[in-house]
Amino acid sequence: MAHDLVDQLDAMTKAKGYANRSQAIADMVRDQLVEHHGHLGAHPMAGTVTLVYDHHKRNIQGLLTDIQHDYGALIIATMHVHLDHHNCMEVLALRGRAGALKEVADRLIAAKGVKHGKLTVTTTGKDFAK
Amino acid sequence: MAHDLVDQLDAMTKAKGYANRSQAIADMVRDQLVEHHGHLGAHPMAGTVTLVYDHHKRNIQGLLTDIQHDYGALIIATMHVHLDHHNCMEVLALRGRAGALKEVADRLIAAKGVKHGKLTVTTTGKDFAK
Amino acid sequence: MAHDLVDQLDAMTKAKGYANRSQAIADMVRDQLVEHHGHLGAHPMAGTVTLVYDHHKRNIQGLLTDIQHDYGALIIATMHVHLDHHNCMEVLALRGRAGALKEVADRLIAAKGVKHGKLTVTTTGKDFAK
Amino acid sequence: MAHDLVDQLDAMTKAKGYANRSQAIADMVRDQLVEHHGHLGAHPMAGTVTLVYDHHKRNIQGLLTDIQHDYGALIIATMHVHLDHHNCMEVLALRGRAGALKEVADRLIAAKGVKHGKLTVTTTGKDFAK
Repeated sequence: MAHDLVDQLDAMTKAKGYANRSQAIADMVRDQLVEHHGHLGAHPMAGTVTLVYDHHKRNIQGLLTDIQHDYGALIIATMHVHLDHHNCMEVLALRGRAGALKEVADRLIAAKGVKHGKLTVTTTGKDFAK
Repeated sequence: MAHDLVDQLDAMTKAKGYANRSQAIADMVRDQLVEHHGHLGAHPMAGTVTLVYDHHKRNIQGLLTDIQHDYGALIIATMHVHLDHHNCMEVLALRGRAGALKEVADRLIAAKGVKHGKLTVTTTGKDFAK
Repeated sequence: MAHDLVDQLDAMTKAKGYANRSQAIADMVRDQLVEHHGHLGAHPMAGTVTLVYDHHKRNIQGLLTDIQHDYGALIIATMHVHLDHHNCMEVLALRGRAGALKEVADRLIAAKGVKHGKLTVTTTGKDFAK
Repeated sequence: MAHDLVDQLDAMTKAKGYANRSQAIADMVRDQLVEHHGHLGAHPMAGTVTLVYDHHKRNIQGLLTDIQHDYGALIIATMHVHLDHHNCMEVLALRGRAGALKEVADRLIAAKGVKHGKLTVTTTGKDFAK
């Protein structure tokens, strides 16, 4: 790698808190592999769905629970956080084929009463022995 | 909106599981506002950090705990999921200024032993009374 | 749409220079449709590949021309801009299946001597009569 | 880097058409630096704006030309491509501060009659001597 590139990489490595340049590079490689795998609908992935909603809204919790039961095999656990008196953030931990994770996320995010939702796809860890 | 655009929007609305077109549009607007706010470092946001690592690796859990303590005011709760014998996924629920969420996420993702990590930024709910 | 959401949408509409709210919303809908279509490998799309390289590097222009000839049916036109004495930006206008655009972009970006490259996918215009 | 990671990197390197692993890694590093610089509003960058519109629509070309004249110092060149009888794709090559590129792109994309538009930010080449 050219010297000037190494210098800029080292500055970014430090700014982001990596112990050294090799670890920063390994993270870029793994991140690009996760993105690559995520495009393959059949690849086994882990992930989270983050939902923000007002739990006072009628039926919203029942609706989200119903959807989760339709996709029970994909959902490992959930965490519920009280952001304020009205708003809560619910985070679901998922594991399954990339295409299936997208499908359950679409349905949860589309549920009436959800203010904002996001799917985050990551590795199951098996791809990277490290 | 032109008829042909409405037709395609309705098809996408149905494919993603929305009850109707207005809800799909409201979600697009809120999603773009969240992205807009996320670029403003000082805007109060909620979020999650998703980390995958091998918990057998020496010190990894101590290291992650140390970093979390440095940013205690930002971290509301964590969830720990066992993906297999080696790999676990840890999800942190956060609340704070967009810039601060990015800073703690950078440090956690850069920690030696983390295979993959992602920051997801969402609303605190207060921006959208709904 | 709730009043507070409309107010924030109007502020963003103004900040981005839209004439009115409806046009901002129509743009969000079309942008999400383009993203949706881009994931379907067989959908006809238009696009650009943007490449930055040092034209003094031996063979770089011959190499890029060779690759372009392999994908001649996809490439409509190119524009070459002199950024400074060494660096130039070359922009290719493309039309074809989404999957084919990704393939030619991957090969051009991977060419030895290219400092940075990006594929941008857009509509052929036919999806949106407007 | 762990052996299994190198194997997957090599497969992706080959799939994308890189001559070797080092070039693939250098591209990831430069890509992440471009993203990092793009977030700094004051960093000098190059870029393109891609616009698709129906040139039969009244005033659209005059409107786009007016906006371009307001930002003349940023625009180096433009390319105009006929996609079909109605639709054309116009690509502008830009150079300037990241924040200014975003501003002109927002105005062009918001112009009445533009069906779809995208800003692509890249390096001026000066950051990477290569």
